[in-house]
Amino acid sequence: MSDPTAAIVIIGDEILSGRTLDTNTNYIANKLSENGIDLKEVRVIADDHAQIIAVITALRSKYTYIFTTGGIGPTHDDITSLAIADAFNLPLERNLEAYDIIKAFYLSQGKELNSAREKMADIPRGSALINNPVSWAPGFIIDNVFVLAGVPNIMQAMFEHLLPSLKKGRVLKSKNIDIFVGESTIAAEFASLQNKYPNVQMGSYPFKKDERFGTSLVLSSKDSFKLEEAYQELESFIKQKFENLIIV
Amino acid sequence: MSDPTAAIVIIGDEILSGRTLDTNTNYIANKLSENGIDLKEVRVIADDHAQIIAVITALRSKYTYIFTTGGIGPTHDDITSLAIADAFNLPLERNLEAYDIIKAFYLSQGKELNSAREKMADIPRGSALINNPVSWAPGFIIDNVFVLAGVPNIMQAMFEHLLPSLKKGRVLKSKNIDIFVGESTIAAEFASLQNKYPNVQMGSYPFKKDERFGTSLVLSSKDSFKLEEAYQELESFIKQKFENLIIV
Repeated sequence: MSDPTAAIVIIGDEILSGRTLDTNTNYIANKLSENGIDLKEVRVIADDHAQIIAVITALRSKYTYIFTTGGIGPTHDDITSLAIADAFNLPLERNLEAYDIIKAFYLSQGKELNSAREKMADIPRGSALINNPVSWAPGFIIDNVFVLAGVPNIMQAMFEHLLPSLKKGRVLKSKNIDIFVGESTIAAEFASLQNKYPNVQMGSYPFKKDERFGTSLVLSSKDSFKLEEAYQELESFIKQKFENLIIV
Repeated sequence: MSDPTAAIVIIGDEILSGRTLDTNTNYIANKLSENGIDLKEVRVIADDHAQIIAVITALRSKYTYIFTTGGIGPTHDDITSLAIADAFNLPLERNLEAYDIIKAFYLSQGKELNSAREKMADIPRGSALINNPVSWAPGFIIDNVFVLAGVPNIMQAMFEHLLPSLKKGRVLKSKNIDIFVGESTIAAEFASLQNKYPNVQMGSYPFKKDERFGTSLVLSSKDSFKLEEAYQELESFIKQKFENLIIV
C-alpha cells in the first residue's frame, strides 16, 4: 500500500513580492514528514481568483491532501474561500456554526460583528470547519483540500487540530554524517553506495562552518533495516578514510 | 508595453522533507520586485527527472524568465542539468569553458579533477555560462531558463552576475501604514478605498507586536502618482479615526 501524498499551496502576493518570507511550507513539510505523508510539490501563487482555481483544479485529483495557506481573513484582498468554492463549483454560503464562533469571539472582545467579520463565516457549501484556537475564525475542509490561515501561529494551531484526522504513512527516517570534506571528494564512493542501496535515498549537502567547507551526507529511507545497513557501511568507510574530519 | 514576468523553480528533496527552510525564493523575489519583473509563481519540486522536465516544460513558454535553484553540484543526486537538457531535447555535453574554470578552481586548491568535479562541466548544448565567484563551477542559461546553484550564497552571487542582463520593468512601489487596530475594524473603509483606486493593490496583513494585535495596510502600484494619492487619502482617514494607534 502506498503512503498518502500531499501538495501545499501558499497563497499570497506578499510572498511573491518578497515582502514576507514564507515559513509555512517548512512547518507543514516537517509535520508531513513526521507522519509519513509524502509532500510532492509546493506552489506559491498570488491572491488571484483564476490562478487559485487553476492550481486547486490541477492538484486536487493528483494527491491525497492539498493544504492551502492564506487569504481567508476579513478584508477585500482575502479571496481564497470564494476561489475554492468556485474551483469546486459550489456556492459560497454563510456557515452558521462558523458565524456563531466568530460572533462569540468578537463579543468576548467587547466588539460587535460587522460585514467584514461576518465574511469569514462564508465558506463553500458542505465544508467541515477547522478549529482556530487563536483568533477563532475557522479554516475549512472541502473534499481533500484543507484551507488554513496564512498567519503562521494561527496556521500552526489549525494544522495541529487537523493532524489527527489525516491518514498516516510509513515515516521516512534519516541519518546523516557531517564531514569537513568537499562533496566532490566523496562523490564517487557515495554514488556507489547509492547504487548498492536503491531503496535508500542519498543526498549530499555542502555547508560552511567555522570558515571550513564541509558536506552533510544524508541517508533517508522508509525501510529502517536498509537505512541502518547503508549507514553502517557509509560510517565505516568514512571512519577509515576521514576519521579526523568527522563532525560530531 | 507589459513588464517582464518570472517563475522560480526550487529543486530539492531537502526542502520538501522540511530539513531545509528555503530562503532562495525570498531573495530572488525581492530582487525581481526591485527591478520591475513580475514574479507570478513559485514551484518547489523534488530532485526528480520527470518532475523537473514537466515543470520546466509547463512554465518556460508562459513567462519571460524561469529561475531554477539546486541540483547542479558534483554528486549523483544532482540531476538538474540533465533534466533541463532533456526538457529542451538537447544533449548534455562537456562545456570546455566550464571545464577549464572548474579545473582551475581545484588546481587553486591543490586538488585534481575527478569525474564528480568534471560532471559539473556537463551542461545542455548551446547554454551560456553564469559566473560563480564563490566556488567557480558555473550555472547556465538555456533560452529563458536560468539554472542556479542551491546553496544560498552561491545562488546570490550568480544572481547578481546575471541581473544586468535581464529586461527591467516598471517597479511596483509600496507604502504602508501600520496601526494597532484589527483588520476587521478597518476592512469596510479599506475596501472602499480599493474600489476607488483599482490600479493600486491594497493588502492588509495582521501582526502581533508587544502583545498587541495590529494591521499593516500596504498599498502597491506601478503608478507612483496614483499610489501617492491613495496613500494620502488612507493616511488622512487613519489620522482622523485612529491617530493614537498609528505605529511610527
